[in-house]
Amino acid sequence: MKKTVEIVNENSCKELTLKKTCDFLKERDNYLILCHSTPDGDTLGSAYALALGLTAIGKRCMIKCADEVPGKYSYFTSHFENSEFEYETVVAVDVADIILLGSLAETFAGKIDLCIDHHISNTRFADRLYLDSSASANCECIYDIFTTLPLPLTDISAAAIYTGISTDTGSFKYSNVTAKTHKIAAELYSYNIQPSEISRIMFDTKSRGRLELERMVLDSAEFHFDGKCMLLTATNEMKAKTGCSDIDLEGVAVMSRSVEGVLAGISIKEKEKGEYKISVRTYPPLNASEICGVLGGGGHKNAAGCSASGTLEEVKKKILDVVAKAMEENYAGTSAN
Amino acid sequence: MKKTVEIVNENSCKELTLKKTCDFLKERDNYLILCHSTPDGDTLGSAYALALGLTAIGKRCMIKCADEVPGKYSYFTSHFENSEFEYETVVAVDVADIILLGSLAETFAGKIDLCIDHHISNTRFADRLYLDSSASANCECIYDIFTTLPLPLTDISAAAIYTGISTDTGSFKYSNVTAKTHKIAAELYSYNIQPSEISRIMFDTKSRGRLELERMVLDSAEFHFDGKCMLLTATNEMKAKTGCSDIDLEGVAVMSRSVEGVLAGISIKEKEKGEYKISVRTYPPLNASEICGVLGGGGHKNAAGCSASGTLEEVKKKILDVVAKAMEENYAGTSAN
Repeated sequence: MKKTVEIVNENSCKELTLKKTCDFLKERDNYLILCHSTPDGDTLGSAYALALGLTAIGKRCMIKCADEVPGKYSYFTSHFENSEFEYETVVAVDVADIILLGSLAETFAGKIDLCIDHHISNTRFADRLYLDSSASANCECIYDIFTTLPLPLTDISAAAIYTGISTDTGSFKYSNVTAKTHKIAAELYSYNIQPSEISRIMFDTKSRGRLELERMVLDSAEFHFDGKCMLLTATNEMKAKTGCSDIDLEGVAVMSRSVEGVLAGISIKEKEKGEYKISVRTYPPLNASEICGVLGGGGHKNAAGCSASGTLEEVKKKILDVVAKAMEENYAGTSAN
Repeated sequence: MKKTVEIVNENSCKELTLKKTCDFLKERDNYLILCHSTPDGDTLGSAYALALGLTAIGKRCMIKCADEVPGKYSYFTSHFENSEFEYETVVAVDVADIILLGSLAETFAGKIDLCIDHHISNTRFADRLYLDSSASANCECIYDIFTTLPLPLTDISAAAIYTGISTDTGSFKYSNVTAKTHKIAAELYSYNIQPSEISRIMFDTKSRGRLELERMVLDSAEFHFDGKCMLLTATNEMKAKTGCSDIDLEGVAVMSRSVEGVLAGISIKEKEKGEYKISVRTYPPLNASEICGVLGGGGHKNAAGCSASGTLEEVKKKILDVVAKAMEENYAGTSAN
């Protein structure tokens, strides 16, 4: 199911050092920079910062993304003039797999000259790869390219890089943060990046509709297995009533794991009639990827997803049965905690 | 209404440099360290880090707080043995006004040898004051004392300091963050402080009661002034129904400013019958400290508080009248934005 495009031979991918990556970027010109689909702060921050930096040293750059760039990023995206021209060098940023280019995947499969990424799971689909899997965000890699190549940082490219770091770390809360992440942030503060305003836009602002939706989702909360599992539901009716779209459901999965004692947070989102997307968030020893795997999905240890069809009650039963089994396996013979 | 204890002459307060503060701490011994009431991560992080640091160089320390220390801070509070003894030197940490000592205020009014604080509104109630109003958290001041005195940092004191910085900055999101804040965080990462676990406990975990309370508070939401002001209410009835205490109301103030277009977030919390605590969170050009100042309170530019008495409706009217005036002053003749 996962890969419909499988063209590039893994062996043809050459891994570059930071220095060699910078040499490559210096040598080439006429860049097309590709973001992953459903673009987030890190892929956009990476693309726009890199485009701004390369443009500043006289290179030509354009940026492409399969999906529309959300307006909330305009404080940096609006500062790059994205014109069309005949590109020569294709660079993908924060793209772990060719499939993540979305509708651009087929066009560019086998045609990516360089991928700059921080996902350890990178499938080596590009001709060259600069991978720093210790980087909390791909924008850490971009920052390193700026300082090494070097490229001139400006208020705008610094704001773009800060955005990527801030969004991919949940504002410095996730376990991917390192001392280096904070050191880079400290450096970026010497530019006029208005970080608290960026944080407000990225994390602390919701529409009134989203507030209303959140209330409804919270009203749907069910607790199972002695409070070790919390289940939230977001139906199309809720979305319709509040004027919300799927994008407004971002964060609901995180909410499902936010209650004390909950080891498995489940959120069920209605897609088409009778079709549901299930997100699972777990704490050890429960494994979200294993749980979702049973229903044909997958993901990370602590965060995974799958789909299921039927009535809402049937779908709830399907996932709760799997969670029940995982609970039993992990807690058999131990006291409930 | 606000100040029932008004004993110390402001003029008797001597402001100390960082160096003089360290000299004072080196000279003295047998410390009683006081936290503010309804203790948060910053006052607790400050008190426990300082106590651990001073104990490590052979001083005796005890810590007092008018209110119970929440169990969620036990990862550092449990590592300090808080025994009673005859103290000689009283140090208040993160306490902007004697009244904020809560039930300890009367006992210690006029008896505080040193206050270490970062609130520009500090009322100079102590004999000596070390004030760094550029510090995002009081724990930044404590970190400076550790490096200057010096005191030996350990995994536990580093975790306590990280907690103060992280909680007072909303995990590096607020406008009080500076390059220095991130530099200190980077240094703290060289200790085994488990920052992502601290963040989870501080920001992403709530009790079921708190979840229920949040739902009720959201249900109380009122919008005023064309959606530029959101008002949330937390009554004693809500607390009783959900089994929540005042501590569970932490974060409600932040919620009040989280909706698109809101420039003034107000949360009103019922204390005694007919007595309310009002928290105000603003975005520029609105000034929370000025708004609360009108009702006898104070605080920071973007976050401040005050008290008011009357019926809930009367209290709402009082604060909304002040906000209306501030809106008029700031938006007179400009288009609503």
